[in-house]
Amino acid sequence: MRTHNCGELNIQDVNKTITLIGWVQRSRELGGMTFIDLRDRYGITQLVFNMETSSALCQKAREIGREYIIQITGKVLERSNKNNKIPTGEIEIEVSDLQIINESITPPFTIEDESDGGDELRMKYRYLDIRRNIVKNNLINRHKLSILIRNYLNNLNFIEVETPVLIKSTPEGARDFVVPSRMNKGEFYALPQSPQQYKQLLMVAGLDRYFQIVKCFRDEDLRADRQPEFTQIDCEMSFVEQEDILNTFEGLVKHLFKEVKNIELSDFPRMTYENAMNLYGSDKPDIRFDMKFIDLTENVKGKGFKLFDESELTIAINAKGCAEYSRKQLDELTEWVKRPQIGAKGLIYAKHTKEGIKSSIDKFFNTEEISQWFQKADAHEGDLLLILSGEKEKTQKMLGELRLEMANKLNLRKQGSFQPLWVIDFPLFEWDETTNRFYAKHHPFTSPKKEHIKLLENGDLKNANANAYDLVINGVEIGGGSIRIHNKDLQKVMFKCLNFTDEEATKQFGFLMDAFSYGAPPHGGIAFGFDRLCAVMGNSDSIKDYIAFPKNNSGRDVMSESPSQIAIEQLKELGISINTK
Amino acid sequence: MRTHNCGELNIQDVNKTITLIGWVQRSRELGGMTFIDLRDRYGITQLVFNMETSSALCQKAREIGREYIIQITGKVLERSNKNNKIPTGEIEIEVSDLQIINESITPPFTIEDESDGGDELRMKYRYLDIRRNIVKNNLINRHKLSILIRNYLNNLNFIEVETPVLIKSTPEGARDFVVPSRMNKGEFYALPQSPQQYKQLLMVAGLDRYFQIVKCFRDEDLRADRQPEFTQIDCEMSFVEQEDILNTFEGLVKHLFKEVKNIELSDFPRMTYENAMNLYGSDKPDIRFDMKFIDLTENVKGKGFKLFDESELTIAINAKGCAEYSRKQLDELTEWVKRPQIGAKGLIYAKHTKEGIKSSIDKFFNTEEISQWFQKADAHEGDLLLILSGEKEKTQKMLGELRLEMANKLNLRKQGSFQPLWVIDFPLFEWDETTNRFYAKHHPFTSPKKEHIKLLENGDLKNANANAYDLVINGVEIGGGSIRIHNKDLQKVMFKCLNFTDEEATKQFGFLMDAFSYGAPPHGGIAFGFDRLCAVMGNSDSIKDYIAFPKNNSGRDVMSESPSQIAIEQLKELGISINTK
Repeated sequence: MRTHNCGELNIQDVNKTITLIGWVQRSRELGGMTFIDLRDRYGITQLVFNMETSSALCQKAREIGREYIIQITGKVLERSNKNNKIPTGEIEIEVSDLQIINESITPPFTIEDESDGGDELRMKYRYLDIRRNIVKNNLINRHKLSILIRNYLNNLNFIEVETPVLIKSTPEGARDFVVPSRMNKGEFYALPQSPQQYKQLLMVAGLDRYFQIVKCFRDEDLRADRQPEFTQIDCEMSFVEQEDILNTFEGLVKHLFKEVKNIELSDFPRMTYENAMNLYGSDKPDIRFDMKFIDLTENVKGKGFKLFDESELTIAINAKGCAEYSRKQLDELTEWVKRPQIGAKGLIYAKHTKEGIKSSIDKFFNTEEISQWFQKADAHEGDLLLILSGEKEKTQKMLGELRLEMANKLNLRKQGSFQPLWVIDFPLFEWDETTNRFYAKHHPFTSPKKEHIKLLENGDLKNANANAYDLVINGVEIGGGSIRIHNKDLQKVMFKCLNFTDEEATKQFGFLMDAFSYGAPPHGGIAFGFDRLCAVMGNSDSIKDYIAFPKNNSGRDVMSESPSQIAIEQLKELGISINTK
Repeated sequence: MRTHNCGELNIQDVNKTITLIGWVQRSRELGGMTFIDLRDRYGITQLVFNMETSSALCQKAREIGREYIIQITGKVLERSNKNNKIPTGEIEIEVSDLQIINESITPPFTIEDESDGGDELRMKYRYLDIRRNIVKNNLINRHKLSILIRNYLNNLNFIEVETPVLIKSTPEGARDFVVPSRMNKGEFYALPQSPQQYKQLLMVAGLDRYFQIVKCFRDEDLRADRQPEFTQIDCEMSFVEQEDILNTFEGLVKHLFKEVKNIELSDFPRMTYENAMNLYGSDKPDIRFDMKFIDLTENVKGKGFKLFDESELTIAINAKGCAEYSRKQLDELTEWVKRPQIGAKGLIYAKHTKEGIKSSIDKFFNTEEISQWFQKADAHEGDLLLILSGEKEKTQKMLGELRLEMANKLNLRKQGSFQPLWVIDFPLFEWDETTNRFYAKHHPFTSPKKEHIKLLENGDLKNANANAYDLVINGVEIGGGSIRIHNKDLQKVMFKCLNFTDEEATKQFGFLMDAFSYGAPPHGGIAFGFDRLCAVMGNSDSIKDYIAFPKNNSGRDVMSESPSQIAIEQLKELGISINTK
């Protein structure tokens, strides 16, 4: 149907007779000439029709609307008015034959890089949205990444194995999507939140190095960057220690950045979870900028200011060059940290302007005391200290949020700069205040650090660290993993710490426990969020931009209008009924 | 943990000190020596322990059981007693240090190429089954195929796009698995039987060339070669005709056979559906052997034999060299075709032995008449004609089955020989006797042959053919596809032929119909059954052998004991209840 695509003809092809087929991007008349930009996935080629020399054809061309599909034959000519912005910009096609292949009604939004369509409209007509360069290129780049990942891992002897999508439901953690079984009425499959147990079984099976780019599912209430179905690059290796895994996958990520963005990343720094929390108030710090926390607790205690005296922790960040913030700006920041999403009671500041040092708590601290804070913070004239005080972990998290907010305001989170970071030595457990118990921070199969195994036996769960690690890029968690428990007895201890009875453990994980009785190798792995990796590499905040047909925040596909009701007979066959009371 | 794997050391490495880790395959004592075969994914290396020179170590080695994981350090020695069957067979390791990394209880079956484990046992302990070379290599080869496929298609500008797994339920065709939505109570997602509509939307979206290796789901009662979840190589192209698709994917399949099996396949023959049925009684004929049908209808009618006189069709196959079949053998064949799976009323034969021509209907046909049949069949002394007679399609199918059975008996379906075939010009519709209506033979989006569109308008559905095609290898349907309808009006005609009201069509396929209003390109595609492709290339009848964790014929995973019951609270949250009455 075509001799060439719309992106490949250039000055070398002049005088060739060619056939193209594609969509009409736009059409314009100029004197006796009509120009049509013909578009396909590969590019745009300019077609020209001359009313004087071929009026019937030109007349036909003038009746063609946007997004019509036409097939043309013509001769490649050198353009007088060249366009250097596109590869085909030096030529145009003098059309000698024109066929309308399919018509189009007027699209609900413009198919341009800057479209006039809102989010919902673009989602409803996603097949038109994908015609836009920006969305199309996201999908093409995602494909390129997947090819690069697979070939890189294949060259390292990793095998891609497809694990089941219809699996056993496990109550631990986030909610499973479930699938009623018609052949086993009253019973359900679950969709995997990750292939965790299967990949561990593949290690027990001796496959040595496994990976899979695989859909996973979580029935959670959705936030902007969550989807009910998402894609992981899931990996596992046998006979390795943490160091082997970090090096292997640091290699992968460097390779991707080199191939896709021509960026040579330096070796990734490593930071313990404890340091990440103490210095950045986050287990996924954005280290494109510094603005580390300064611990003022010792400096401010016992000076008669009740808040500080009673607080576990008082910490500050230095907003460089912000000393001249107006009263209004400071009030706005205070309101910002008091929003329920952050939850601070207030914000204390100290600024060093030309007029000297001034703070919101001048009543309690004199200039000399405050200038010691500035010294400790390596802050100088022109700088602004923002201070939070309270219970340690909460205060760290709040100041971490404020740090990001200030960085946004100061434009310190530079697009196009990429700062990867390994966060290591995560806690093994996490205390949940609602249910008053410990949960696995990563998952129940994560290995404690060797030297912390005795803490488990002593019941000192709070201080037990895991051989667990996250890869963070620009403040976004891209991947995470751990060395797994491969010893049946240690796995039992772990389940006990998590308050599983033997019966519950057997019921839920019996097959994995069984497998550990037959020579399980030391193993560990990592899983990357592929959607997020694509988004981060594409400088976007939203994974939706990198998913062909995403769902909205209610889990709905507005294009196909799914989920939807199904027939009574089908429910009957499945042995279930609707019961929304 | 290791300097080498268990498959790579050879005579070049003699005298090196190395560390290996792996599973104990077997252990044997010979005089004062103990030998252990250490296994990992990559191979087996022989370890040797000497009771005289290092008795403590040797004693330790003797206490190690099968499937223990051990880590050893030692020196590579040249073997005196070489084994040429394995790459490491010229060397052995004189062990100087031995660590037991993990123990194993006795496996429930032997981890050998010929295992003593039955099917159910091997499925329950699939992680041990995969340790066996045969299963492990199936998974490795499947991985290799997937890498080859992706790179081949990528080089042809195909983009892999992940389409949703949680989609809209469509009642047409086989049963959907459904997923209750918690956020939209009373509503359900479906799991895709194929990404058909999404890949068509991607063509409307201008992606030009799409593929995806993707899990699909069908809630059907399972046969030996069916799984509730299976994997397709799903492909679609724009601006193409049937010929482009056949050539593109014939290229892919040739490439795979060349790379994986070093077999250069000749150009694939093409056969119309009509010819396939007339000559082989199957739309997926095994053409590794000839044994085409001989139509005797004209020869046998009006000779006074009631069966033949009343039959629409009388056809024969020539079982070469079977003239000496005994009465018992012929009776067995007769019983075989009379089984309900085949459903014939009887079997007629005619044989040409040294004694001359003889048949089971000598009363009605003289030797001269019968020898004309032999002539028509190009059959000679020593041959046996097997004849069925009756309603055309049924008789063809029955004789097709008998043809395969005879080929099995005569060992004509040679393993290692591969005969691909394109079957083309499928009927557009299929009559269903139970519901007394036409269904789409392929699916409702398949394009009729241009010259047959008028048949649709005239209501002559029986004779309308489709631009649809199947790829068959050795009698197994490996893939199938079609050119799609890209014209909204034709799609409407199609839905009408299938008895869809406008309302039903809009409700189920509205978004695809909408998409066709915005400049849909001519497009078509194909989908290959990846599990089957792996099985056929591996000379196996069972796709289970090529799936890491398959389900049994009741849709159960006997390893994880799934599906299973879920908690009442979860059902409540989902707004459903069990109702098996």
